[in-house]
Amino acid sequence: MPEDKSFHMTPEEFRRYGHAVIDWIADYQSRVESLPVLSQVKPGEIRASLPANPPARGEAFAAVMKDVEKIILPGVTHWQSPNFFGYFPCNASGPGILGDLLSSGLGVQGMLWSTSPACTELETHVLDWLVSMLGLPEKFLSSSTGGGVIQDTASSAALCALLAARERATNYTSNLKGCDGRIVAYASTQTHSSLQKAAMIAGIGSENLRLIEVDDRFAMRAEALAKQIEADKRAGLKPSFVCATVGTTSSNAMDPIAEIAKVCRQHNLWLHVDAAMSGTAMLCPEFRHLQNGVEFADSYNFNPHKWMFTNFDCNCFWVADRKALIQTLSILPEYLRNQATESGAVIDYRDWHIQLGRRFRSLKLWFVIRHYGVEGLQYHIREHVRLAKQFAAWVRDDKNFELAAPAPLNLVCFRHKGGDAVNQTIMDGLNRSGDLFLTHTKLDGKLTLRLCIGQTNTQARHVENAWKRILQEAEKAGEHSRSA
Amino acid sequence: MPEDKSFHMTPEEFRRYGHAVIDWIADYQSRVESLPVLSQVKPGEIRASLPANPPARGEAFAAVMKDVEKIILPGVTHWQSPNFFGYFPCNASGPGILGDLLSSGLGVQGMLWSTSPACTELETHVLDWLVSMLGLPEKFLSSSTGGGVIQDTASSAALCALLAARERATNYTSNLKGCDGRIVAYASTQTHSSLQKAAMIAGIGSENLRLIEVDDRFAMRAEALAKQIEADKRAGLKPSFVCATVGTTSSNAMDPIAEIAKVCRQHNLWLHVDAAMSGTAMLCPEFRHLQNGVEFADSYNFNPHKWMFTNFDCNCFWVADRKALIQTLSILPEYLRNQATESGAVIDYRDWHIQLGRRFRSLKLWFVIRHYGVEGLQYHIREHVRLAKQFAAWVRDDKNFELAAPAPLNLVCFRHKGGDAVNQTIMDGLNRSGDLFLTHTKLDGKLTLRLCIGQTNTQARHVENAWKRILQEAEKAGEHSRSA
Repeated sequence: MPEDKSFHMTPEEFRRYGHAVIDWIADYQSRVESLPVLSQVKPGEIRASLPANPPARGEAFAAVMKDVEKIILPGVTHWQSPNFFGYFPCNASGPGILGDLLSSGLGVQGMLWSTSPACTELETHVLDWLVSMLGLPEKFLSSSTGGGVIQDTASSAALCALLAARERATNYTSNLKGCDGRIVAYASTQTHSSLQKAAMIAGIGSENLRLIEVDDRFAMRAEALAKQIEADKRAGLKPSFVCATVGTTSSNAMDPIAEIAKVCRQHNLWLHVDAAMSGTAMLCPEFRHLQNGVEFADSYNFNPHKWMFTNFDCNCFWVADRKALIQTLSILPEYLRNQATESGAVIDYRDWHIQLGRRFRSLKLWFVIRHYGVEGLQYHIREHVRLAKQFAAWVRDDKNFELAAPAPLNLVCFRHKGGDAVNQTIMDGLNRSGDLFLTHTKLDGKLTLRLCIGQTNTQARHVENAWKRILQEAEKAGEHSRSA
Repeated sequence: MPEDKSFHMTPEEFRRYGHAVIDWIADYQSRVESLPVLSQVKPGEIRASLPANPPARGEAFAAVMKDVEKIILPGVTHWQSPNFFGYFPCNASGPGILGDLLSSGLGVQGMLWSTSPACTELETHVLDWLVSMLGLPEKFLSSSTGGGVIQDTASSAALCALLAARERATNYTSNLKGCDGRIVAYASTQTHSSLQKAAMIAGIGSENLRLIEVDDRFAMRAEALAKQIEADKRAGLKPSFVCATVGTTSSNAMDPIAEIAKVCRQHNLWLHVDAAMSGTAMLCPEFRHLQNGVEFADSYNFNPHKWMFTNFDCNCFWVADRKALIQTLSILPEYLRNQATESGAVIDYRDWHIQLGRRFRSLKLWFVIRHYGVEGLQYHIREHVRLAKQFAAWVRDDKNFELAAPAPLNLVCFRHKGGDAVNQTIMDGLNRSGDLFLTHTKLDGKLTLRLCIGQTNTQARHVENAWKRILQEAEKAGEHSRSA
């Protein structure tokens, strides 16, 4: 057999095709604004364009890229369009993409310190940087009792926090014996659904996640939390964990962390703070009052992949007591033993999350922070908040529209006063047009539109156009309902 | 404020810097063979080279790339070196890297079908392709009762399978009420440690994961499994789940799936098959006998990111009954409701895994399959197996060495007959030299070296050199022990 027979792409081929993909992405960045934001394909349409059977023989790279343009692109909802205002943003940026590319190229698997020391140490270092960049408490520093780790998503971070709380509350016996149905966790009715999922996964049960009522700003009522904890204790249960949110998904509500923390300390509960999108705002000192009390959190997380221009997936998760987390998630089979681990001088991040394997994700975060500097990140965050305030003012001043919730940062919840059907018609019309994309929620039982301003390239003209298009669709919806 | 002020990288800058990163990776591919495989840095060395504080102002891209070369590269253990024989491989390849780059550039978040139909449909399509490429049962096809999904790692796939089994066994009540400590799961003493971690996470408890004894080939004893299940049933417990392995991490042992499946059917247990590395071998029909009985599996997974040239992370996970999985992991808050989901005509993959958010990972898998074709993938797998058989023959023929386990595919477990200390010395000498990297396990209580041949670019000359270097280090270790 000839030694040099190979189907692999050579480095020189990689260089050529790589330049072509980079060019394709640069062109995509230039034209994404002109593409319909929400994909207009119907269920099954993409699959119908793909061959039923896998290729027996390899194909030319150009043929693959042709299909990307022809088949894949029409099926993409353009999260990177400056006219994307749906959900929360999920931002890419040049430095983020290139840091991630380097991670793919190095192909490192960082489960242990020794399987790539740079993967572990850069991550620890950048997460320490972020503690000061976001004004987080020093106990989260790796030089203190805590430390940070990159998780894939806030769902996984919440699950890890809940597991650590479960173990702490049961003296690290649930891991061995299994759950006994007595652990109770707390969130608000507005907390992200991933907490419910975490309670299901962790064997705690969704019925044992109490959803505490909120006030008229959709923030958790700390006194209702205290009451529920007391009732559960009287019932012989084990209250263990509270999730407070800095900026709920539905309406960007801010839970009163200081008040909640007081209740947690009184009853010895683990306090997890979920700042998935809004944590990025803490780059700017003027917004940090929104998470007053964060110094009492046992864990905290935010997603640079949402609003901090670092492409998916990248969730930063800190704990105040790393021992509790490691004791919860650690396993050490023979085939992973090594000198560095035994010495105790290093971090092995496999003990900080669900998975064993892990990618070199800190590279993209490091690239982003170095490219923008703190100044550049702050500039864009402030600009997005300014645009959201502007949009909220337009809503407030329009006789047909109303704000549905406070808009403390970059999410505006609003609705047409004409009722649910009109709002649905407006949203469907906008999204079908492809001019912009926004999503909805329900607040006070009413269908509410959400305009989230945070996409990397969103500028004033995109927000102005969004408002213009909303007014047009409202006009059409009004005519339609009048003629109906 | 000027509309055009921005710290973002422009498309033209992205094009220029992107070409530079591609060139850096192409050069890396050309020189990686000459770099020490195991990073030679000491704990803390990387961090000591990084500035204590984050940059206040943005830096030039060239400055970042300079630090990649100077600071990061020495801290990398080169999983992409053809001299990497440790653990299991974690392969990158040109088409895999470029598919992943495209995923970063599109920046799609595919939690729902509607948030990028192509992300969902390409994934379903490619996982259907793989069912036929690997000779898996048709029930795993999306057109049948089952379906496939890309998970990050085999750890997460095992956790999802265990959760679905837990719910099925408790009539979908553990999700609501929490676990009651009566669920029992089964694996072998050789099963990957991620199963223990999954039992801990799922609230089942590691003591309720029974580790069944193995035979002299390190494969699970089906009759011991049956006995344990019966004992647990008599004790009033709920046997629910078995994990069988196609190629254990420690020694590439093959559990007898057909026999285990018979026990599972008899007692109505969920059978999960973990083929993390060795599943890739099933591309070649001549190896499929190693997983005889797979047609009875309730779930199955393998990692293209290990041996199939698709960069991390990419785990393919199939279930025979998708409803069981979805019912286990589904949540639907108002802000994720949409017409396509309500219609029931689409797959929303957020209900198939732990996380909510998800990256467009099928792109890299699609790129790899199209670049290589089935033929190209088969060629390289067969070549790796041929080299492993060759290496095993050299071991067998050497009077100082012995094989420690059967070597059915690409992993050879072997040891010097001189005992643990000699083997430790050989391994440390090799790894410290940087010439190659291998890792160890314990079999029959003895320290055993593992040579796993599966890195993308490993050819005959790398394996020949590995054996030469092993003999040299053995010689040195012998002299050392004689003079000591």
